[in-house]
Amino acid sequence: MLDKFFNPRSIAIIGASREAGKVGNSILSNLINHGYKGLIYPVNPRASEVMGLKCYPDILSLPDGVDLAVIVIPARLVPQAITDCGRKRISAAIVISAGFKEIGPEGRELESLLFSAAVSSGVRVLGPNCLGLINTANNMDCSFAAHYPEKGDIAIISQSGALCTAMLDWSARSHIGFSKVISIGNKVDIDEETLIEALADDADTRVITGYLEDISKGHHFMRTAERVTRIKPVILIKAGTTSAGAKAASSHTGSIAGTNVAYECAFRRSGVIQASSIESLFDYAQIFSYQPLLRGKRIAVVTNAGGPGIMAMDAIENVGLVCAAISDKTVSRLKEFLPPNANFHNPIDMIGDAKAETYGMTLEVILQDDGIDGVMVLLTPQAMIDPVEAAKNIVEATKGCNKPVVASFIGGEKVKEGIELLQKNKIPHYPTPERAVGALSVLADYVKWLEKPRRVVKRFAVNTTKVDRVLNLNRKRGITNISEYDSKAILASYGFQVPRGKVVKSPEEAAEAASEIGFPVVMKIISPDIIHKSDVGGVRTNIRSYQEVIDTYELMMIRVRNRCANARLQGIFVQEMVEDGWEVILGMTRDPQFGPMLMFGLGGIYVEVLRDVSFQLAPISSDEAVEMLVGTKTYNLLRGVRGEKPVDIQLVAECVQRLSQLSVDFPVIQEMDINPLKVSAARSRAVAVDARIRISLPVENT
Amino acid sequence: MLDKFFNPRSIAIIGASREAGKVGNSILSNLINHGYKGLIYPVNPRASEVMGLKCYPDILSLPDGVDLAVIVIPARLVPQAITDCGRKRISAAIVISAGFKEIGPEGRELESLLFSAAVSSGVRVLGPNCLGLINTANNMDCSFAAHYPEKGDIAIISQSGALCTAMLDWSARSHIGFSKVISIGNKVDIDEETLIEALADDADTRVITGYLEDISKGHHFMRTAERVTRIKPVILIKAGTTSAGAKAASSHTGSIAGTNVAYECAFRRSGVIQASSIESLFDYAQIFSYQPLLRGKRIAVVTNAGGPGIMAMDAIENVGLVCAAISDKTVSRLKEFLPPNANFHNPIDMIGDAKAETYGMTLEVILQDDGIDGVMVLLTPQAMIDPVEAAKNIVEATKGCNKPVVASFIGGEKVKEGIELLQKNKIPHYPTPERAVGALSVLADYVKWLEKPRRVVKRFAVNTTKVDRVLNLNRKRGITNISEYDSKAILASYGFQVPRGKVVKSPEEAAEAASEIGFPVVMKIISPDIIHKSDVGGVRTNIRSYQEVIDTYELMMIRVRNRCANARLQGIFVQEMVEDGWEVILGMTRDPQFGPMLMFGLGGIYVEVLRDVSFQLAPISSDEAVEMLVGTKTYNLLRGVRGEKPVDIQLVAECVQRLSQLSVDFPVIQEMDINPLKVSAARSRAVAVDARIRISLPVENT
Repeated sequence: MLDKFFNPRSIAIIGASREAGKVGNSILSNLINHGYKGLIYPVNPRASEVMGLKCYPDILSLPDGVDLAVIVIPARLVPQAITDCGRKRISAAIVISAGFKEIGPEGRELESLLFSAAVSSGVRVLGPNCLGLINTANNMDCSFAAHYPEKGDIAIISQSGALCTAMLDWSARSHIGFSKVISIGNKVDIDEETLIEALADDADTRVITGYLEDISKGHHFMRTAERVTRIKPVILIKAGTTSAGAKAASSHTGSIAGTNVAYECAFRRSGVIQASSIESLFDYAQIFSYQPLLRGKRIAVVTNAGGPGIMAMDAIENVGLVCAAISDKTVSRLKEFLPPNANFHNPIDMIGDAKAETYGMTLEVILQDDGIDGVMVLLTPQAMIDPVEAAKNIVEATKGCNKPVVASFIGGEKVKEGIELLQKNKIPHYPTPERAVGALSVLADYVKWLEKPRRVVKRFAVNTTKVDRVLNLNRKRGITNISEYDSKAILASYGFQVPRGKVVKSPEEAAEAASEIGFPVVMKIISPDIIHKSDVGGVRTNIRSYQEVIDTYELMMIRVRNRCANARLQGIFVQEMVEDGWEVILGMTRDPQFGPMLMFGLGGIYVEVLRDVSFQLAPISSDEAVEMLVGTKTYNLLRGVRGEKPVDIQLVAECVQRLSQLSVDFPVIQEMDINPLKVSAARSRAVAVDARIRISLPVENT
Repeated sequence: MLDKFFNPRSIAIIGASREAGKVGNSILSNLINHGYKGLIYPVNPRASEVMGLKCYPDILSLPDGVDLAVIVIPARLVPQAITDCGRKRISAAIVISAGFKEIGPEGRELESLLFSAAVSSGVRVLGPNCLGLINTANNMDCSFAAHYPEKGDIAIISQSGALCTAMLDWSARSHIGFSKVISIGNKVDIDEETLIEALADDADTRVITGYLEDISKGHHFMRTAERVTRIKPVILIKAGTTSAGAKAASSHTGSIAGTNVAYECAFRRSGVIQASSIESLFDYAQIFSYQPLLRGKRIAVVTNAGGPGIMAMDAIENVGLVCAAISDKTVSRLKEFLPPNANFHNPIDMIGDAKAETYGMTLEVILQDDGIDGVMVLLTPQAMIDPVEAAKNIVEATKGCNKPVVASFIGGEKVKEGIELLQKNKIPHYPTPERAVGALSVLADYVKWLEKPRRVVKRFAVNTTKVDRVLNLNRKRGITNISEYDSKAILASYGFQVPRGKVVKSPEEAAEAASEIGFPVVMKIISPDIIHKSDVGGVRTNIRSYQEVIDTYELMMIRVRNRCANARLQGIFVQEMVEDGWEVILGMTRDPQFGPMLMFGLGGIYVEVLRDVSFQLAPISSDEAVEMLVGTKTYNLLRGVRGEKPVDIQLVAECVQRLSQLSVDFPVIQEMDINPLKVSAARSRAVAVDARIRISLPVENT
């Protein structure tokens, strides 16, 4: 797809320069010096030859059949250059030039000209405002990076050119090799999604990593990422997550969720591994690049000192991995060569007199233990040990092994060479046991992801016509906050159980309705202008008699008029009181990038205070719905505590799926809260006791 | 106090060896080669001279006036050697020899002989099984560490000798200097507490760090640490925290708390900074050693690239620091020399063409901004920048500055020399912005600790005699789980409000009692054998009539007899039903090391499910009691949500303090749960609706 970018047979450098220090000079010399074997055409109207290559005055005078143009000319000339490339049938261009939307309104305009030029000429564009592109497979360095990376199987995509440079320099120290390095700049055309898709098929790439500040098209990205992560791991840093600023949300769900949560959901849904810093990005990338997958959770630790062994054990428990039990057979084999005061159980402490060969022998034995899924090797630079020899032994003993092995040689100068030997031989090394465990844990998570069955979203038979009608009626009237009555009608059409009830307009009508429904009842005011009804005394429960209904009606009307003088009152809703059951909340808020985000958690007044909630993006599968429940502490309530019967978990999960379907079917719905959904174990039912829905209006009405 | 250890005028090496590779040889040569200026006396019966020094056949033949003995002989000879030291009036000994409790029962016995020898001879002992001691102030290296550290003001105490070696090697790479390095081994005599106390007064030490696997005397340690941390920061790794294994606890409090929580509480109470890895230990130690304290939370970021700047901002918000607002004055001064497309607001992005001097100029300007409390400087190795020159500029611009400055040069080979220059000039450097922010955040926490007023524990007037009587009666009868009735009597004696109630033995008596108390009532069975009453149907609430009381009594008796056939039933407790209010829990569990741990949190059935709880060690001050409340999400409930009135926070805090006083006054109380404590805003009262207390029995009864 991006073959002209990755494997061009010929490259034109538009703006190639003879002047050292200029970007147009750096790129040309990088391309020549790092061993690119294709044809190179410098373009520069003021030169006839650059670095020994014939120079062309302009794009149109280039020979035919150029595959890729690298553009390093002033920003204002770039759109025309792209048009010219189109005329010359050069279908791929990397725009290095800066001066586009990153400099303000003027640049933004120039960038839209560039976009138009790309679209109308059919030229695919990487950039502008980027560092360029490196493909180590064919030694092609179309960048002005000062550092050329070692060959390897990690691809990196970066939205920050400077960070790209920094990461190349950083990784060189640990001998981390790359397949492709791609700086995406302002991504006027080619973005992270296109690249991840292309890299999925790239045989030279085993791990895709990236630094992103935003994602261009949330939904497309997710779909692509979900497919790619099943082929190879994708590890991303998403920067700029916190300052997003709270949206003005009217629902509980909206006010708890934020951009942060949306990205987390999107990454989780699509199997993308999120790294919180460059350090963890490379911590994770290394283990994926070097080691086989972790097929279970049981980790054995081999050490020559107790302290780090204990720290490793702490870390293993903290991340949810398991300290492997060492089998009797393994112990007796270890006893053949380890000293009697060694520790034969996890952490296997070979103690201070362990020699380099002891590492090799111990590893050989324990890697054969079926009760061990992965191994961490620790070394402290004690007198008896030669870290380089130890590293050699570790490399030897783990060759061809199908279990991941990670190492942590704790120290500085004394262990430096040993560490280097490990890294060159693809044993991932971490300065502390905690970071090694962190990497193993991500490896385990990825395996869980791969083993996850494909998502099947169940569709329920529902009454969409009814919902359509109710929503349209509200939209026509310019109502965004749908009344409780209408909200429940919508939910009922999607198969939710709702309490029996009636809208009434007088005390007597209320009392009649209550008698029909059966006491006790609940009474609530109906007003499109009052969202949090209980805040203004607009909800009364446990009303037990005819007379009490009449009194409550009158009192409520007076109170609400006093407190919200301007609110439109549409009457009072008299409703069956659903007495037993746990109060949970189901909610939805629509993220501009990723669409409907569903929320489940502890309901009632506890929602925003305790925030025991979990999120998933719609549409949701039945497995994911259960996962959402399990992801909260509230789940333990539902499973039955202190002698209480468990509730029907599948029933609650089904409610989440129905809400998901409703969110997907009706994009006008912006936010929903079902709070509480009362879930009763005794009666095995889940009732939407209260609900609110906010919709968007047609443009002419807003 | 430990002056003979730190500044001896003469040292005897008991077991000095001529044989290279032996520990007795390494220590002697370390002592000689690293420049110790005092007298050195090798002791070895089989040599007359070692390394050019006169050798003595045994301790008793040493000249008088030796200050310190370093013992490197087989374990079984060590106790006698200590006795001999005593006879020669050598009052300080470092026992390097291993082979004590770390090898099992035999060694354990030898260690108790060593302990006795130390006590009876009056010789203070460091070790056994340790690496030794280094004091860089007088170039004294009494260790067999292969590495001698740079001079500095960080002291390190380590319970693992191997880790000590590793940390010395580690820190050398970053030019981290040490004042003292002390390996404490099995700490038969001198332990972490003695050392922290001694280091508090050590003028060469500015920061105390340590690696510990356990703490010898919890209470003493805390008291000492609390005093020391007000003088200088103490940073500790506590390893081996997770595997402690859940205790068999009968209270909610006991089952939620663990050893982990106790250590966290103890460290928090005494101002000790806990580090989770060697990496963070040194991350923190460096900033304390090199920089002034952070007097506010407002951090400015200076960068030459956008990406890392954004990552820094994310991190600042995540840890609860504040992104400083740059004043107009500062902005206009920056505009004088920064290019127009730079970003003048936080993060201050000098953009890619920033030169080394730009760093210096920018820092000089922003360090004068009163709205900025601390600064983070970021650098990516771009073409225009010379990292070494930038480092020089940073060092120059921040000289004598009273605000902390940290740096992160992101990269490898290209930034290496710049980083080294920073480190040598005491600008703490971190490989990522996230770790730099982590260090700043710890600095801010420490300032908060220093500013905390001294703790004042209020004592309430209570009826201890009554509690004494109730407890004794139960102990005499061999009852460990105090009945609800007695528990409430105890609480009432300590000023808790309890519901009115009566113990009854027949249905009719129950009904009479209920009529007196007033309906509705609650009924609960009383049995020392049933701890979780509601699990077996032993609690009924909202009983509204005479007849209902009678029915409930009979039903309860039948049910409980069926479900707990062998439980002793002492009757039923009829009790006022406390209807309104939030249900919170107050609890206490006694940690073997640190004493009573108090718990506050959301009560009722939610306790163990939601675990919204916080812990503090008793005795507790009124500030700390409030802190405990604030430390939970439940606090937001108490402050009033959704139109509810706030409760009297001081009243709840007082309850915590009363529980604290009760825990301290009666060490026989092992665990307590007050669940729920019903806290009503309307009536401004807090009632202990249910309570359980577990006590220990006199030894003859257990």
